[in-house]
Amino acid sequence: MGIRTGQEYLDSIKVRNKVEIYVMGKEVKDVTTNPFLKPAVLAFKATFDSAWDEDTKDLARVWSPFINEEVNRFNHIHRSPEDLAAKVKLLRKISHKVGACFQRCVGYDALNTLYIITELMAQHGKTEPKERFIEYLKTVQKKDLALAGAMTDAKGVRTLKPHEQPNKNAYVRITEVTKDGIYVSGAKANITGVAASEEIVVLPTRAMGPEDQDYAVAFSIPTDTEGIKIIVGRQLNDARRLEGGEIDALPYFYNHEGLIIFDNVFVPMERVFLMRDWQYTSQLVEIFSAYHRQGYGGCKAGLGDVIIGATYNLAKQIGIEKAPHVQDKINEEIFLTETMYAAGIAASLNGIEVCPGCWWVNPMQANVTKHLVTRFPSQIAQLAIDIAGGILGTAPSEWDLKNPKIKELLAKYLQGVEGYTAEDRIRMVRLLENVALGVAFLIESVHGAGSPAAQRIMFSRLYNLSYAEEVAKRLAGMKSNVKFTKKVEPWKESETEKLAKEAEK
Amino acid sequence: MGIRTGQEYLDSIKVRNKVEIYVMGKEVKDVTTNPFLKPAVLAFKATFDSAWDEDTKDLARVWSPFINEEVNRFNHIHRSPEDLAAKVKLLRKISHKVGACFQRCVGYDALNTLYIITELMAQHGKTEPKERFIEYLKTVQKKDLALAGAMTDAKGVRTLKPHEQPNKNAYVRITEVTKDGIYVSGAKANITGVAASEEIVVLPTRAMGPEDQDYAVAFSIPTDTEGIKIIVGRQLNDARRLEGGEIDALPYFYNHEGLIIFDNVFVPMERVFLMRDWQYTSQLVEIFSAYHRQGYGGCKAGLGDVIIGATYNLAKQIGIEKAPHVQDKINEEIFLTETMYAAGIAASLNGIEVCPGCWWVNPMQANVTKHLVTRFPSQIAQLAIDIAGGILGTAPSEWDLKNPKIKELLAKYLQGVEGYTAEDRIRMVRLLENVALGVAFLIESVHGAGSPAAQRIMFSRLYNLSYAEEVAKRLAGMKSNVKFTKKVEPWKESETEKLAKEAEK
Amino acid sequence: MGIRTGQEYLDSIKVRNKVEIYVMGKEVKDVTTNPFLKPAVLAFKATFDSAWDEDTKDLARVWSPFINEEVNRFNHIHRSPEDLAAKVKLLRKISHKVGACFQRCVGYDALNTLYIITELMAQHGKTEPKERFIEYLKTVQKKDLALAGAMTDAKGVRTLKPHEQPNKNAYVRITEVTKDGIYVSGAKANITGVAASEEIVVLPTRAMGPEDQDYAVAFSIPTDTEGIKIIVGRQLNDARRLEGGEIDALPYFYNHEGLIIFDNVFVPMERVFLMRDWQYTSQLVEIFSAYHRQGYGGCKAGLGDVIIGATYNLAKQIGIEKAPHVQDKINEEIFLTETMYAAGIAASLNGIEVCPGCWWVNPMQANVTKHLVTRFPSQIAQLAIDIAGGILGTAPSEWDLKNPKIKELLAKYLQGVEGYTAEDRIRMVRLLENVALGVAFLIESVHGAGSPAAQRIMFSRLYNLSYAEEVAKRLAGMKSNVKFTKKVEPWKESETEKLAKEAEK
Amino acid sequence: MGIRTGQEYLDSIKVRNKVEIYVMGKEVKDVTTNPFLKPAVLAFKATFDSAWDEDTKDLARVWSPFINEEVNRFNHIHRSPEDLAAKVKLLRKISHKVGACFQRCVGYDALNTLYIITELMAQHGKTEPKERFIEYLKTVQKKDLALAGAMTDAKGVRTLKPHEQPNKNAYVRITEVTKDGIYVSGAKANITGVAASEEIVVLPTRAMGPEDQDYAVAFSIPTDTEGIKIIVGRQLNDARRLEGGEIDALPYFYNHEGLIIFDNVFVPMERVFLMRDWQYTSQLVEIFSAYHRQGYGGCKAGLGDVIIGATYNLAKQIGIEKAPHVQDKINEEIFLTETMYAAGIAASLNGIEVCPGCWWVNPMQANVTKHLVTRFPSQIAQLAIDIAGGILGTAPSEWDLKNPKIKELLAKYLQGVEGYTAEDRIRMVRLLENVALGVAFLIESVHGAGSPAAQRIMFSRLYNLSYAEEVAKRLAGMKSNVKFTKKVEPWKESETEKLAKEAEK
Repeated sequence: MGIRTGQEYLDSIKVRNKVEIYVMGKEVKDVTTNPFLKPAVLAFKATFDSAWDEDTKDLARVWSPFINEEVNRFNHIHRSPEDLAAKVKLLRKISHKVGACFQRCVGYDALNTLYIITELMAQHGKTEPKERFIEYLKTVQKKDLALAGAMTDAKGVRTLKPHEQPNKNAYVRITEVTKDGIYVSGAKANITGVAASEEIVVLPTRAMGPEDQDYAVAFSIPTDTEGIKIIVGRQLNDARRLEGGEIDALPYFYNHEGLIIFDNVFVPMERVFLMRDWQYTSQLVEIFSAYHRQGYGGCKAGLGDVIIGATYNLAKQIGIEKAPHVQDKINEEIFLTETMYAAGIAASLNGIEVCPGCWWVNPMQANVTKHLVTRFPSQIAQLAIDIAGGILGTAPSEWDLKNPKIKELLAKYLQGVEGYTAEDRIRMVRLLENVALGVAFLIESVHGAGSPAAQRIMFSRLYNLSYAEEVAKRLAGMKSNVKFTKKVEPWKESETEKLAKEAEK
Repeated sequence: MGIRTGQEYLDSIKVRNKVEIYVMGKEVKDVTTNPFLKPAVLAFKATFDSAWDEDTKDLARVWSPFINEEVNRFNHIHRSPEDLAAKVKLLRKISHKVGACFQRCVGYDALNTLYIITELMAQHGKTEPKERFIEYLKTVQKKDLALAGAMTDAKGVRTLKPHEQPNKNAYVRITEVTKDGIYVSGAKANITGVAASEEIVVLPTRAMGPEDQDYAVAFSIPTDTEGIKIIVGRQLNDARRLEGGEIDALPYFYNHEGLIIFDNVFVPMERVFLMRDWQYTSQLVEIFSAYHRQGYGGCKAGLGDVIIGATYNLAKQIGIEKAPHVQDKINEEIFLTETMYAAGIAASLNGIEVCPGCWWVNPMQANVTKHLVTRFPSQIAQLAIDIAGGILGTAPSEWDLKNPKIKELLAKYLQGVEGYTAEDRIRMVRLLENVALGVAFLIESVHGAGSPAAQRIMFSRLYNLSYAEEVAKRLAGMKSNVKFTKKVEPWKESETEKLAKEAEK
Repeated sequence: MGIRTGQEYLDSIKVRNKVEIYVMGKEVKDVTTNPFLKPAVLAFKATFDSAWDEDTKDLARVWSPFINEEVNRFNHIHRSPEDLAAKVKLLRKISHKVGACFQRCVGYDALNTLYIITELMAQHGKTEPKERFIEYLKTVQKKDLALAGAMTDAKGVRTLKPHEQPNKNAYVRITEVTKDGIYVSGAKANITGVAASEEIVVLPTRAMGPEDQDYAVAFSIPTDTEGIKIIVGRQLNDARRLEGGEIDALPYFYNHEGLIIFDNVFVPMERVFLMRDWQYTSQLVEIFSAYHRQGYGGCKAGLGDVIIGATYNLAKQIGIEKAPHVQDKINEEIFLTETMYAAGIAASLNGIEVCPGCWWVNPMQANVTKHLVTRFPSQIAQLAIDIAGGILGTAPSEWDLKNPKIKELLAKYLQGVEGYTAEDRIRMVRLLENVALGVAFLIESVHGAGSPAAQRIMFSRLYNLSYAEEVAKRLAGMKSNVKFTKKVEPWKESETEKLAKEAEK
Repeated sequence: MGIRTGQEYLDSIKVRNKVEIYVMGKEVKDVTTNPFLKPAVLAFKATFDSAWDEDTKDLARVWSPFINEEVNRFNHIHRSPEDLAAKVKLLRKISHKVGACFQRCVGYDALNTLYIITELMAQHGKTEPKERFIEYLKTVQKKDLALAGAMTDAKGVRTLKPHEQPNKNAYVRITEVTKDGIYVSGAKANITGVAASEEIVVLPTRAMGPEDQDYAVAFSIPTDTEGIKIIVGRQLNDARRLEGGEIDALPYFYNHEGLIIFDNVFVPMERVFLMRDWQYTSQLVEIFSAYHRQGYGGCKAGLGDVIIGATYNLAKQIGIEKAPHVQDKINEEIFLTETMYAAGIAASLNGIEVCPGCWWVNPMQANVTKHLVTRFPSQIAQLAIDIAGGILGTAPSEWDLKNPKIKELLAKYLQGVEGYTAEDRIRMVRLLENVALGVAFLIESVHGAGSPAAQRIMFSRLYNLSYAEEVAKRLAGMKSNVKFTKKVEPWKESETEKLAKEAEK
C-alpha cells in the first residue's frame, strides 16, 4: 500500500549490500545505527511518521489518480494550487518535529519535474519517456519509496560548460548506450539525504547545448546499486554526535549531504527519462528549481518557529522576556519567518497549470521565496544570538552536568528564574546552537535550490523590464510604442506556451 | 448603473456648495481645476477609467449580488479569495497608469469592514446597523460613488485614551443623539483623497473602552455637507504644480491628504452604522487595517514597477544599463517589488471566510505585506537614486529647456546615448524624483494603514508564541505540556470564532 | 586680511557683470536677493560667519605659513592630522547652523589637491605649475575668496573615454593654447555652490590617457567671467522658496548646484595649473576624492544631529519620547550618525604626510566614510519618517495657519502635549521634511564625491587582497610564498612612493 | 625581564597544582597538551610571540615608565593616543596569525581600567588601592604575566540587582574581611582565556548601589589557587579537536571561555583594589567596557581579513574570482571590515587624557566600534557563505582524503582550477567554516564587552540630545533657550571632570 510507517522505512534501509557509504573515512554498513547518520535517518523517517501523526496526517496523505489510492504526499504529483500549498504547510509542521532538514523534498520535486518534462516530450511526439516515468511513479507511490534527488554536479571549473571541462567527469555523463540501458559515470555533489534514501533520481544540473548532449541525462536508480559510492559530508558540530550524549548534539535529528560517485553504473532503460535530449535541460532546471525554491517557504519558516520558541524560552529563563528590546527582537523574528512563509504560500496558491491537471508553482514568487531564504535565516540567527546571550558560545557540556564534583555548583550558578534548572538552560542553548547555527539554517538556506545569484538571474528573466520601461516612459511623457489599452503583463500568467516554444527551439 | 466613466465622476464633483476646502490657506471651489488638487482628482478618476480601459476592465468590473449588476470593484464586497487577489492585481495596474496613490482604497476597505462588523452585530441580535448599511451599500454601488474613508483622529497626546485627553475634541465624538440622527464634532487627520470624494465613511481609529463610548462612532456623510471643513496638506514638491509646467511636477497625477474638521455636523440615523458600540471597535480596527495593509502589496508594487522602468530607462540614456552593478541593482529593485506583491497575493488567496460569503484577508500575511512596505520602498528609492545619478538633485528646470538663450547648450551637454534628447533625460529624472521621492512612496508607505509599530503589535498577537515555545521545549528534551499528536496551529486558520468571542466580552 | 565677515562676502558677490546665471529659465542678476538662490548664498555665508562665531572661531581660524597670518580654514592647506580633524569638526558644527550643505568644501579640497599635485610635478622637475599655484593660493587666502570646485563633466556616454565621445564637448577641454593662456570649452555638471562663488577651480574628473590630453586641464577662473553660463538645477521642494513664506521652505538655508558652461573661455596662463599633463590625472582624482569623501563624515553627521534633534522634539510634542521603540529608533539614529563621524575622524587623525608638511587623509578610511554616507542617511531619514508620523506628508501649510477662518481650528486639532502649539508642530515637521528628505541628505550623500561604485573600486585598489589570501593560506595549511616574519601590510601606510611611481609611468 | 617568549609562557602554565580545570566533564591537568585546550593555549601564546616576530615586534614592545624597561604591550598602561592605536593595529595583526581570539585583551583592559580607577580614588584621598595596584602592575610587567580579566557574573535573574537576587551567589561577593585580606565566593561566567592564564583580574560587572557593597570588589589572584574551579565551555565544532586530525578542526588555534567558581577563596590585601567602594563601580564598568569595545576594531577586522582572503582563494579555486558579483561581494567584505577598523582607530587617535599621562579611548567612538562589531561579522559571514558555496556544509572529512579506497575519486571530483588540489579545497573550506562560523566571530562579536543593548544605552548617555534638540528648534524657528554663540558640544571632549563629579555623588 501507498503509505508506510516510519518503522517500515527504517527496516527497509537497514541492510545495504552493494552501495559503499563512507562517513569520516570509514565505510558504514547500517545507516540506522551509525551515530553520525542516525539523526539524519530519523529526520528522514519523520516524513513517513507525518502520515500517521494526528496533527499532520490530513496534510501528508493525498489521493493519487495514478494508483487510485492514498499516497504519502512526498511522492505526489501536484494537481491543484491547494496541493502546492499543502506541501508548504506540511514542511513547516515537520520542521517543528525535527528542527532539521528532513531531506525528502528533492526527490519529491524531482518527480514533479520529470512528470512535466516527460509530458512535454510526449506533446512533442516522444512518448516513451513519459510511459517509463509513469510506470516508475506508480511503483514509487505504491511502495512509498524514500527518494533522494541528485542534481548538482561536481562542476569543475565554473566558467566552463560540461563539454569544455578539462576533467571530462566534472559532470555526470552517459558513457555508453546499449539496447537495455545506459552506463553513467561522474559525481553528484551536496546530495541531501542520499545515504538515507532507497532510490536516487538523477537530473541534469544546468541548461545544456548540443555539444553537451552526453551530459543531458535523467534517470532513477536504487541507492543500493553496485558501483555507487557515497561520501557523506561533514557539518558544523557533527563530531558531537559521536560522543553518545543526548544534549550537546541536536537530540534526535539532523540532516546530511553526500557526494555520490557513479563509477560506470548501469541504468536499465525503463529507468531512463532523459537521454541526450539537451533541448529540455533548460526547462527541466527551471521547473525543478522553482518547485524547490517554493518549498523553502515551509521548512525554513518551520525552523524559524523553532528558533523563535527557543529564544522566547531562554528569555523567560533569565527573566527578560518582557524587556521591550527583547519583545521587539522576537517580533522581528516572527516578521522574518512569516514573510518567508507568505511568499511560499503565494507561490503555491498562485501556481500555474502547465499541463492538464498538473500544477507548477508561480516561478517569480518561488524565486522570491528562496531569495528571502538566502537572507532572512541569517538575520533570525543573529537576533537569536542577541537574545540568547554569550552563553550560546560558552555553556558547559552535558558531561559537566553529570560530574558529581561540579554538577551542584553548575546547578547553583546557571540558575535564573525559579522553576528552570541549569539543565533546562543548557538544553535550550544547545538546541539553539544546533538549529540557528546549523548547516540547514545557515548554509543550505543560502545554497539549496541554487545560490542567490541564480535567483537574481531568474528575476531578470521573469520580470518584464520592457513593459516597466514603457510604463515609465508614458508617465514621463516620453514617446512610447506600447498602446496601453492593450493587455500587457509585467509578470507571466501562463507558462505553458513558453515551455512549448522553448522546447521547439 | 453601477459603473460610471471618469468623466461622469469629474462632472459630479465639480460643484460643491457646502463643504469648505482649503489649499495653502485659500478656499477652493472647483477641485477639478485647482492646480494643486487637479492631479489628485485625475489620479482618483483613474479608478473609474479602470473599468473601461481594455487592460483593466476585467479586473475592475465585478458582479454584485446586492444590486444584481456589475459594479466597480472599488465598491465591491469581497466574496472569494480571488476577489481579494483581484484587488491587489488591479491596484498594481492602476499604479502603472498614474504613478501615484489613487486614493479610493480607504473607502473600499471601509465598506468591507462595515459589512463584517454590522453582520457580526446582527449575529448578536442587533440587526439595524446591518439593514442601514446594506441600504447604503446598494446606493453606493448603484451610483458608483467616490468614497473616502476617514479613520485617523487628531489624537492629541498619544499616551492618553480618548476620554482622558485634555482636549475633548482630540477624537471625533458624538455630541448629541436625536431620534433622527446624531451630531458629531472633531477632526480626522491625514485623510487620503477626501477633497476628491463624494462621500466620507467615518470609522473609529482605535480600540475603545466603555468610558470612550461617545468616540465609538461609524457613519457616512456626503462630502459636500454643511459644517465640514477640509484643510488639504502640503507634500514634497507640491508648489511646482502651481508653475503651470508639464515636466517638473509629476505630469498628470498626484494624491492628496486632508484634515477633515466636523464642526457639529448632523448625520441622519440611516447613515449611522456604529453608535457607542465600543465593544466592536477593537475588531473593526483590526479588520480594516488588515484589509488596507493587504492592498499595499498591489499599489506599492505598482510604484516599484514605475521606478524600475524609470531607472532602467535612465541607465540606457547614459549607456550603463549593462554594467553588472546596474543590472544587479535593478534585480534588487525587482526582488523587493515582487516580495511586496507576493505577500499581498498570499494575504488574498489565503484569505478567510469570516461570515457566509464574505472574505477577509489573512491577517498575518496582510500585516507582513504592510511591514515589508514600511521598509522596501525606501530601499528601492535608494537604489533608484544610486542608478539615476546626481542629476536627480541638480537637473535644470523645464523652463531652462524653453529659454532660447540656453536650450541648445542644454541639448548639447545633457545628451547621452544617441537617440535620447536632453528633454528625455529631464522628463525621466523628474518622474523618478516625483515618484521615488514622493510622499506616497516614502511617507505613506511607512504610515498608511498604521505605522510600523502597529504591525509589530499584531505580529505578537497573531503569532502563537506558546506553541512555538512548546515545539522548542520538546526538541530540546525539556518537559512539555502540549501533546504533539493534537492539532496545534502556529497561525490562525479561522478568525470567525475569535471575532464572535471577543465581541461577547 | 585673510578673514572676511559674512557681510563682506555678501557685498562682494552682489554685483555680477559678465557671467550669465539662470534659475528656472530666467537670468538672475543679484544672487543675494533672488528667492531661489538666497538661501544657498546664506548657507555659503555661514562659512564666513564661522570664523567670527564664538563656538566655531577656534576651529575656523588657522595660521597660514604662506601669507603668515590667520586665514579662514576653508582656504587652508592641511599641515597636520589635527588640521584634517578640525575640518571634520568644523563641518559638523556649521551643519548645525544651516541644516544644509554650505558648499565651500569642493573649493577647499580642490586647493589641497592642487597643492599636492603641483608639488609632485615640481619634484619631477616641472616647477612652474607649483609657482603659479602658490601665488594663486596666497591671493585666495589674503582675500578670503569664496571658491567653488568644478570637477564633474557632462560625460556624455559613460562607457566612452573623453576622446572617444561622439560629442567632443562631453568633457571640458583645451581648444587653443597661446603664449598668454588657454581657451577652454565644455560643461561641468552638478557644481555645488557655483552661483554663490567668486572663483571657480576646475579639475579633471577622471583618469586620462595620452589621447585625452586636451581634456587634462586644471585652472582657476573668476566666476564673473565673460563666456561662463551657469544653469542652476532644481531640487526637491524648491518652488516653495518662491512663495515668500518663512516656514514651509527651509527657513533660511539651502544649497544649490549648477551646470557651468564654458563657451570658449580664456584662462590666463598664471591661472593654469595642469595643461595636458594627463599623467597626473589619475592621482589628482584619487587625492581630491579622498579629501572630499573624508569631509562627509563631518557635514552629514551634522545633518544627522539636526534630524535627531527634530525627531526627538516631535516625539516630545506628541508625548511619545519615552516609548521604548521611539528611544530605540533615536539611539539608532545616533549610532548611524556617530559612525559616519567616527570614520571621518579616523580618516583625519590617521592621515598621511604625502609631501613635506602637507597632509592627505587616509584614503581607505576616507572611502569608508563616504561609503557609509551613501547608506546611512537614507536609514536615518527612514527612522525620522517613522518617528515623525504621517503628518510629515500631510501637514497644513503656513498659509493655513494664517487664515483667520481656520487658524483656530488648526490650533485646536494639531495640538499635542501642552506647551507646544500647532505652529511648533508644523515648523518642526517642515524642518524635518526639508532636511531629512532634502537633496543634500538623500541625493548628494549618495553621489557627491563619487557614486557608491566609485568607492567600491577604491576598496579593491586600496585593500591588499593578496596579503589577505596569504594569511588565509597559511592558516589553512596551504603552501604560501609569503614569509610572515617579513613586514607585510594589508593597508597602505605611506602613499608618497606610490604617488611618485605612478607619475613616472 | 618584561618580555617573555611564547615557550617561556607555555612552560609556566604547564603545571597546575591547586586550581581545578574541567573540560567536558573531566579534570585537566596540563592545559598545554589537552586536545580541547591546546589550540586556545597556542592562540594565547601568539601574544607572546608577537613581541619577537619581525612583523609585529615594533608594535608589541613598548617602554614602561613603571619598571623603566620594555614590556609586552598587553601589560602596558596607555600613555598616548598612539598607544591606543597601536593596540588596535597589533590586535589586527595577531588575528592574521591565529584566526581566532587570542584572549589576552580582557586582562590588558582590566589593568588600564584599574589604573584609572585607583588614580581617581587617590585623587579623592584614598591612596592605598593605587599603591597596591602599582606594585602589582610592576610585577605583572616585570614577569610578563598572562592575565585573564573576569568581569561577567552568573547574574541569576537579570531584572534584579545583586542584593535582590534570591540566590545570594549570583554575583561574586566578599564574604569576610580580615586584616590580611578578604574571602570571596561566587562565579564569573564566559571568562575568556582563563584556563590559559597565570593570573585572574576580577572586576565588578555592573554599577552598584550602597546595598550592593559586598559585591563591589576588584582584585587579582593567581589562577592556580586553592578553591578556584574552572569549567571550560563548549563551542561550535569543538569535538573535532578530539579527533586528532589537522584539517577539519581549525588547524592550530582556537579560543576558549570558562566559568570560574570562587569557593570561599582568600585574597591577600595587597591584591585587593576595590573593596566595597560601590561609588566607583559605575565608572569602572564604563571605562573598562569602552576600552574593550575599542579593541574589537582590531581583532575582528583581523578575522575579517582572514575571511576575505579565504573567500578570495576559494573563488580562485573554482574560477569565479572575476565574476562581477563575486568581486562585489568581496568589496563589501572589505568595506565592512575596514569600517570596524576605522571606528577602532578613531576611538584611539581621538582618545582622552583622563588622568595625567593616562589615556582612555573616546567612549562614543569605542561604543560605535563595538556596535558595528555586533552587526558586521554576521554580514561578512553571510557573504563568505555565499561565495564559498554549498560545499561549506557538505565537504568530505580529512579522513576521507586519507582513505585509499576513495582518495583518488575525491581528488578527481573536487578539483576545480588546475593547480589546486582537493585537499586545498577542503583546507580552505574548513578554515572558513571554523573562522566565519566560529564562536569568536559569530557570538563573541555580539556579546563580548557587552551585548548590543548595552551600547545603545551608552549612545543615549554619551550623546547630547538636548543640544541636538536646540539645534533643531533654532533652525525651525522655534524659541530656543540656548545661545548659539556659546560653545556647546554635541559630544564629550573631556571626561575627567565627569569622572570626578560622578565619584563625588
